[in-house]
Amino acid sequence: MSSNKSIDLSHHLNTLSRSRVPSPLKYVVDYMNQPGMISLAGGLPHPSAFPYNTVNLEVYSPDADIAPTSTKAKTTMDISVAKDISPDRPNNLSVALQYGASTGSKSLSLFLHDFAKRVFRPAYSDFQVLLHFGNTDGWNKVVNLFCEPGDYILIEEHTYPSSQALWAPMGCRGVPVSMDKDGIIPDALECVLQEWEDSHPGTKRPHLLYIVPTGQNPTGSTIPVERKKLIYDICVKYDVIICEDDPYYFLQMPNYTPVSDRCTHESVLPVHDESVIDGALLDALVPTFVSLDYQGRVIRLETFSKTMGPGNRLGYFVCNPLFSERLVRASEVTTQAPAGWSQAIVEEHLKAWKYEGYIRWLFGLRQLYTIRRDWLCDLIFSEFDVLPSPDGIPHDYIALPKGHGKRMDANPKSKYIFSFSAPKGGMFVWVQLNLNNHPKFEGIRASGEEYPEEKLETQIWMELIREKLLLTPGSFYSPVLGPNQRMKREKGVAFFRLAFSFETREDMEKGVKRMARVFERSWGFAELLN
Amino acid sequence: MSSNKSIDLSHHLNTLSRSRVPSPLKYVVDYMNQPGMISLAGGLPHPSAFPYNTVNLEVYSPDADIAPTSTKAKTTMDISVAKDISPDRPNNLSVALQYGASTGSKSLSLFLHDFAKRVFRPAYSDFQVLLHFGNTDGWNKVVNLFCEPGDYILIEEHTYPSSQALWAPMGCRGVPVSMDKDGIIPDALECVLQEWEDSHPGTKRPHLLYIVPTGQNPTGSTIPVERKKLIYDICVKYDVIICEDDPYYFLQMPNYTPVSDRCTHESVLPVHDESVIDGALLDALVPTFVSLDYQGRVIRLETFSKTMGPGNRLGYFVCNPLFSERLVRASEVTTQAPAGWSQAIVEEHLKAWKYEGYIRWLFGLRQLYTIRRDWLCDLIFSEFDVLPSPDGIPHDYIALPKGHGKRMDANPKSKYIFSFSAPKGGMFVWVQLNLNNHPKFEGIRASGEEYPEEKLETQIWMELIREKLLLTPGSFYSPVLGPNQRMKREKGVAFFRLAFSFETREDMEKGVKRMARVFERSWGFAELLN
Repeated sequence: MSSNKSIDLSHHLNTLSRSRVPSPLKYVVDYMNQPGMISLAGGLPHPSAFPYNTVNLEVYSPDADIAPTSTKAKTTMDISVAKDISPDRPNNLSVALQYGASTGSKSLSLFLHDFAKRVFRPAYSDFQVLLHFGNTDGWNKVVNLFCEPGDYILIEEHTYPSSQALWAPMGCRGVPVSMDKDGIIPDALECVLQEWEDSHPGTKRPHLLYIVPTGQNPTGSTIPVERKKLIYDICVKYDVIICEDDPYYFLQMPNYTPVSDRCTHESVLPVHDESVIDGALLDALVPTFVSLDYQGRVIRLETFSKTMGPGNRLGYFVCNPLFSERLVRASEVTTQAPAGWSQAIVEEHLKAWKYEGYIRWLFGLRQLYTIRRDWLCDLIFSEFDVLPSPDGIPHDYIALPKGHGKRMDANPKSKYIFSFSAPKGGMFVWVQLNLNNHPKFEGIRASGEEYPEEKLETQIWMELIREKLLLTPGSFYSPVLGPNQRMKREKGVAFFRLAFSFETREDMEKGVKRMARVFERSWGFAELLN
Repeated sequence: MSSNKSIDLSHHLNTLSRSRVPSPLKYVVDYMNQPGMISLAGGLPHPSAFPYNTVNLEVYSPDADIAPTSTKAKTTMDISVAKDISPDRPNNLSVALQYGASTGSKSLSLFLHDFAKRVFRPAYSDFQVLLHFGNTDGWNKVVNLFCEPGDYILIEEHTYPSSQALWAPMGCRGVPVSMDKDGIIPDALECVLQEWEDSHPGTKRPHLLYIVPTGQNPTGSTIPVERKKLIYDICVKYDVIICEDDPYYFLQMPNYTPVSDRCTHESVLPVHDESVIDGALLDALVPTFVSLDYQGRVIRLETFSKTMGPGNRLGYFVCNPLFSERLVRASEVTTQAPAGWSQAIVEEHLKAWKYEGYIRWLFGLRQLYTIRRDWLCDLIFSEFDVLPSPDGIPHDYIALPKGHGKRMDANPKSKYIFSFSAPKGGMFVWVQLNLNNHPKFEGIRASGEEYPEEKLETQIWMELIREKLLLTPGSFYSPVLGPNQRMKREKGVAFFRLAFSFETREDMEKGVKRMARVFERSWGFAELLN
């Protein structure tokens, strides 16, 4: 545990967040807690008017086998939250369903503070945990903490559309940073910041970096710790705040091994001895940005959406005390605390599971998504000829039409359809199409189309939809540079995002077969083979 | 049911809300629903990773007697929400805890649309219902829909502090409208708007009125329907949007009758025949602003906080389709839909109770708060000498120290401590102090104090706190006119708000006795009597 405290970063706050004042009702709460005080001050509805008496939850046990290949019944445990168990119990329903401080449940926050200390390991001592409604709410509050209209925000070259849809109407502008299969490239980040005065004279240098470090949406990339260190140091040098939006952190996976090299399909993660799971899981996770953050310039957005269900609308910030205090002021007048049901249910549940149980559950999630990642990658390997990428292609593999891999060994680069990497985290495989091989591409370019890559990408997307396969096209993740201004692509490059998180194995197989058929036809390989 | 549609009010939208665009993922959802489509498009976590199997709720039956004088046990009913009852059932937990549209549950919204039609009765046909997280979230979204920094907003002369704490840091300014015991005064509203160009040359006339029409916080006033009509017509004339924040709508009460004139303490509301409750309740409620709204210029903020518990963090807008669509766009990038637990629990619950059951429950709430209102008013009558107000005092009653009422019959106006009205709704009694009688007041005025009324109010507040009684002082509700600029009071006037919603009868009695003791001492009546 580090003993150094966070540094003063108050100059990053925008006018709005500086101007917020605490509610006068705050003072009232202090007086209310004096012994013997009779309060006719609070406007609290009477708890007899909450029509709920008891809630009984049947919850999985932490080691419930949720792997899709499991045939075992899930074991369950019972948890109860009742109205009047005891007035001092934080989660009796009279309290959970009442108005409370916008910081939410103290005891839940303490549990999460301890969890953050053990798992995310901030590199300074006075970090805070503050509940929010999930990372969409978290990012909204971060942008409204730091950004003025017109500000530039550092973003990934392919970025989560809802994060842009927040700030674009505020008149903010995205500054994309180039990525490879390991996430944004430190040199590219430094270059943008170093040359800012020349490239954008008279404008304020960006002071906020939005980043999804694990299983990035949409590219699936996970930033290795060495690269995180380089990025962090650049942000220190140029005084940039990092917003680490990390919903997939616990969905990190071991490296993918193609079926032909794999010993056995089962036991993807051989550890079953509970006593070593804590260490095994933590060792397998790439350290967070907050774990490198000796200054307190990282705001981590943590969520229960991927680990307990998005409908909880519950997550938390890990950040320095100044930012946390300003975020509370914003919550007081916008959202208040997260829903009492979500807080009470998740808290009772975590207390029943305890730290060790929650870690065991997260370990099970890792297995679930590893198996699903392998399903999708195995299917790509079986429906295409997949070869290791030659030099110059920024992914692990290239995919050629089935039966073409051997014939084209001499120069596979000239005939591949797409390149990809097997992700080490998250829910997505990102496929980079090689349009330079596509028979229609030169024609579209010659027609003077402003965005020829996106035009053809959309055409192929519609071909897939006609064959009843829905992917998300790369254009959805294209950075917003300003009003009606989108980034242009490198020549001949298009993308699709494939999610392996939800569909059955059977439908995934049908889907990848449809993709192979459409790609072969679209690129003209179907005719070649006949 | 009116057949006319809402008029075009798009010119009221601010730059931010005009600039929002739908998420591209919206198109994906349309394709996803095509038969036979295999989707690898959505980034949905797998529902086997939601660790909740079943939730069983023990809920009061709608006619459970929650009155504080009841000795009957509350009857309960069981409701269950399970993971996999049926995939088509909107509230199986696999759906309720998953990501969904920001509009939330369709079936819950339909129930509430029907409820709004029957109970709030909008005067135009194409009104919409849109879920939000409670009225704090609702008001935040309304201000961000209409207001630019620096805008003037029409507010009540005494107004809810959190509503100001939202817009004040945005640089907006409040324009207070004078009130009496029936809420804001129509002539005062018209006067402000009519004289705007003269009183505020070169500024934009306010186009948003924030109003709490029932059991207003803090004054407890309820606007009669005749006055609502006058206010609505003025808003039509000057093209003003009305935001009707109405959390206490179902906490309306019959007129207060002092104990001496009351037939029997029981049977405050004699109706117990279920078949007439629907009509009896609806007849007893003052019609809403939306019921007068033939143009669609009212946004109603409706909440479950006072009827099912604030911890649900659930409520809804009733408004025109344009505003509703823009509010959805904002929700997509800020809050998303309300918590799945809250939606699923409230929906299952309302479906089990049905419309008639919910109305029955609301009727019970009315009884609960009527009894509590009567407790507090009865105590004021018993601890003070209360007389009908003489002319010129804007409340029903004046209160004098006990034993002084008779002695001062000749000229009670000169010696009363405070005036008040018994509220017809909500949770609060608003007490207007007569500082002109207070021995310290002239001294404070003579000292050149800028806000002498608030200075003395705070002194008396601290005297009460020393005697272990906590009220909220009127200064908390003082309108913000601009940065560091608060409205000045009429000479000699101060206020306290007393809540009757929460404390026991016993503590309420102790509290009012302490108030009487402190007031008598502070005004120097204790010495006079000795």
